Amino acid sequence: MTDGEPVHPALALDETVHQRFRLGIMAVLAETAECSFTALRDQLQLSDGNLSRHLRVLEDAGLVEIRKGYAGRKPCTWLKLTRQGATALRQEIAALEQLVTRIRTTDSLH
Amino acid sequence: MTDGEPVHPALALDETVHQRFRLGIMAVLAETAECSFTALRDQLQLSDGNLSRHLRVLEDAGLVEIRKGYAGRKPCTWLKLTRQGATALRQEIAALEQLVTRIRTTDSLH
Repeated sequence: MTDGEPVHPALALDETVHQRFRLGIMAVLAETAECSFTALRDQLQLSDGNLSRHLRVLEDAGLVEIRKGYAGRKPCTWLKLTRQGATALRQEIAALEQLVTRIRTTDSLH
Repeated sequence: MTDGEPVHPALALDETVHQRFRLGIMAVLAETAECSFTALRDQLQLSDGNLSRHLRVLEDAGLVEIRKGYAGRKPCTWLKLTRQGATALRQEIAALEQLVTRIRTTDSLH
């Protein structure tokens, strides 16, 4: 780290949450108390395998809770953000807002 | 795509630009007309190899221009966003803003 110079906001992004599918998963889960695997899959247009893989990463990191249950009489997998997941998502959003603000105020894109 | 339902903003994120190191690279390049490899590396705290790898992805996608030149008499690699890169970064920022707004307005994190 360079002495005295503030750290670039991109460095505050965490790969576990920032990856675009996982960010999408966590964003959808933030909207509901609990969401079924199929609803999540359809909303994010992911394959079963791809969604499972990303859910495993999030579960291993303690950010998402996976619960096997039922929707009526049909077996169903339910997903929800853990408290730690909600915190991680809030931190990601804060980092994104900082980054976007920085680009908007200093860029030469215009 | 589900008929009638609007697409989730996470689906508008492009992996080439969204990956956190590449997003950092493009954010730094948006601040300057041209940036040296070493300045970029130091600001983002990346190794030479890691930075080179991500720059190659961005160059292959036409988003960053890599120019070998000099800084005084020392050989130096200069980097800048292409016009296409500036457009891609603007699109990423717009998608992030949409996503953040959606999470902020619909979440049950609080």
